[in-house]
Amino acid sequence: MTSTQIVAPAGLKDVVVADTTTGDVRGREGFYHFRQYPAVELARTRSFEDVCHLMLEGTLPTPAQSAALRERLAAAAVLPPELLRLLPDVARSGPDRASLSRLRTAVSHLGALDGFAPTYGAPAEQVRADVLRLVATVPVLQAAIHRLRAGLDPLPARPELGAAGSWLWMLGGEEPGERERRAITAYLTSTVDHGFSASTFAARVVTSAGSDVASAICAAIGTFAGPLHGGAPDRALDALDEIGSADRAREWVREKVAAGERIMGFGHAVYRTMDPRAALLREIAVGMGGPLVDLAVRVEEEVVSALAELKPGRELHTNVEYYAGVVMELCGIPREMFTPTFATARVVGWGAHVIEQTQSPKIFRPSARYVGPEAPAPLPS
Amino acid sequence: MTSTQIVAPAGLKDVVVADTTTGDVRGREGFYHFRQYPAVELARTRSFEDVCHLMLEGTLPTPAQSAALRERLAAAAVLPPELLRLLPDVARSGPDRASLSRLRTAVSHLGALDGFAPTYGAPAEQVRADVLRLVATVPVLQAAIHRLRAGLDPLPARPELGAAGSWLWMLGGEEPGERERRAITAYLTSTVDHGFSASTFAARVVTSAGSDVASAICAAIGTFAGPLHGGAPDRALDALDEIGSADRAREWVREKVAAGERIMGFGHAVYRTMDPRAALLREIAVGMGGPLVDLAVRVEEEVVSALAELKPGRELHTNVEYYAGVVMELCGIPREMFTPTFATARVVGWGAHVIEQTQSPKIFRPSARYVGPEAPAPLPS
Repeated sequence: MTSTQIVAPAGLKDVVVADTTTGDVRGREGFYHFRQYPAVELARTRSFEDVCHLMLEGTLPTPAQSAALRERLAAAAVLPPELLRLLPDVARSGPDRASLSRLRTAVSHLGALDGFAPTYGAPAEQVRADVLRLVATVPVLQAAIHRLRAGLDPLPARPELGAAGSWLWMLGGEEPGERERRAITAYLTSTVDHGFSASTFAARVVTSAGSDVASAICAAIGTFAGPLHGGAPDRALDALDEIGSADRAREWVREKVAAGERIMGFGHAVYRTMDPRAALLREIAVGMGGPLVDLAVRVEEEVVSALAELKPGRELHTNVEYYAGVVMELCGIPREMFTPTFATARVVGWGAHVIEQTQSPKIFRPSARYVGPEAPAPLPS
Repeated sequence: MTSTQIVAPAGLKDVVVADTTTGDVRGREGFYHFRQYPAVELARTRSFEDVCHLMLEGTLPTPAQSAALRERLAAAAVLPPELLRLLPDVARSGPDRASLSRLRTAVSHLGALDGFAPTYGAPAEQVRADVLRLVATVPVLQAAIHRLRAGLDPLPARPELGAAGSWLWMLGGEEPGERERRAITAYLTSTVDHGFSASTFAARVVTSAGSDVASAICAAIGTFAGPLHGGAPDRALDALDEIGSADRAREWVREKVAAGERIMGFGHAVYRTMDPRAALLREIAVGMGGPLVDLAVRVEEEVVSALAELKPGRELHTNVEYYAGVVMELCGIPREMFTPTFATARVVGWGAHVIEQTQSPKIFRPSARYVGPEAPAPLPS
């Protein structure tokens, strides 16, 4: 360790490591934005493809730009035959929980097959094309792996249904209704990015070495698979299943709160108010209605009131996972595809950060502080 | 951005982000160590497997521990048939330069096939077993991909030859001589780790989310593939090829230095003296002798004297790539396998850092500073 070194807080918490124009999260205000626009408003009013354009090109598209992007994405969604040949083996590999490992393998192989070149020294247009290729193929790959694992034939994308419609189609093989398409569009669109998560940071570290886009996205996928990353809406829904019915909510919640146990779907590292994504998705869920929604709303109320009574001063709000799980369940997405649905959206944010990182000349190469036995020690004979 | 944030220097340069007992690099002294032992001394006197034990278990092994580790590594080097079936497709994918992309795919698939579980909450023994599995298989995978790409059958490892001997055998299909085995043992052993490189950092970021070992190593491989990472000994050798013969060295070097061009194989981000790895490998190369060694030594002398004369005050020393390339060429390693040879060694260091990171409870989740147009802006209609 040299005298000029700075010792950072553990996990680099609250350490600014990059400047960004992709957007921001204001935890205390319960507000987040993509570029300069409120993300929730974008999710309510814009297509997934338009938000892709915003994130990857920097601006909301004109109608002509929007049409051009849709065409590019449609063309980029077609998998090469060499990859299709391998997918059944990839689909069979690993336990059920390992969907992101299978995606990582498929993305890695696609990057090699397509000959993705290092981003270092590459024209900006090449980096963007490689990002678009992965934005277009990640849903196709995940749906194909899911179907192959279930013994079904993969289905090609249906870009004319929009990203959400195509995703639902590829999973289930049925044209989704308008209500489902709108709900999943809002979910995907609100989820493309969310501040500087560990997966986003990993993608930027890899990119900073000048590596190719597939290397960066594989690192992000691998980080996203970590239990500490967050973004696993299936766990929140598993809790609702465990409760079973609204009349058991009060007792279940109070037991958990009294025991100091973590309740999945509540609490967030950044937000000190309700997660704005949770508010959006609650509204969508309530609009769709049904017993699951009644249960979810009831459990939420019970958590809030139990905390107020049993742990005064400890505010805990629903996070994005909670109502995301409810909405996906209502739209017929199988539970093991909840996290892949999240990844389908988030690859856009990773891509935006990869593009931005290529404009930064500096490799991420921090230091470690040696705290072992004094060196040099003589080798034992 | 909140008022409590720290703005880090670009690339986190000189920012300490972790405590480590794996070792350290003292740039100004030209000294580096693994755990508390001088790395060069280890490379001169110990087997690759013993240094593995030091890095992964924390201690130099007793003879019994050494034998046990060799047995474990031998058993772990056998590839599952499901992976072997896929390897010809992986081997065919991508351009020649993409050897690390192919390795990334193979490691990713192996991690899924083996059902690598998240490191979060995992017993230390499981994490170590997964690391050992990759330490054992990375050379086997790389050699198999190399041979399949050349239309040859892959060869199983020959652990009884030692790591270096087995590696040379798997590449060429011939039992290497004692001289070559010793030279490559020293190279591999001296290269297992080297401070907190970007690839090491990437592996730790991924691990900090609680992800599985394959996810972390895939991220490290992807980072290592970046042109800014360093560790590409083939580039230094390409320069020697370009010069061709010792009598052309003086002119070639002076032209480069006068033009201010970078000379591959010279200069290092950390060392301000001769890279101790370069000193070790020069000694080994000189011991082996021959026209390539004469050329390399001559070019080195010319660079030093040209700099002294034309750019006084600008000291530049050979780095590890320079004589590493020479030694590998003398040992018959094909040039496209120079970087894979490096990866064969470095996976040990990545693994040691992954194991260490699992003992740290904090996810790497730094911040970014939003520098875009003021938000919220109204959406254009």
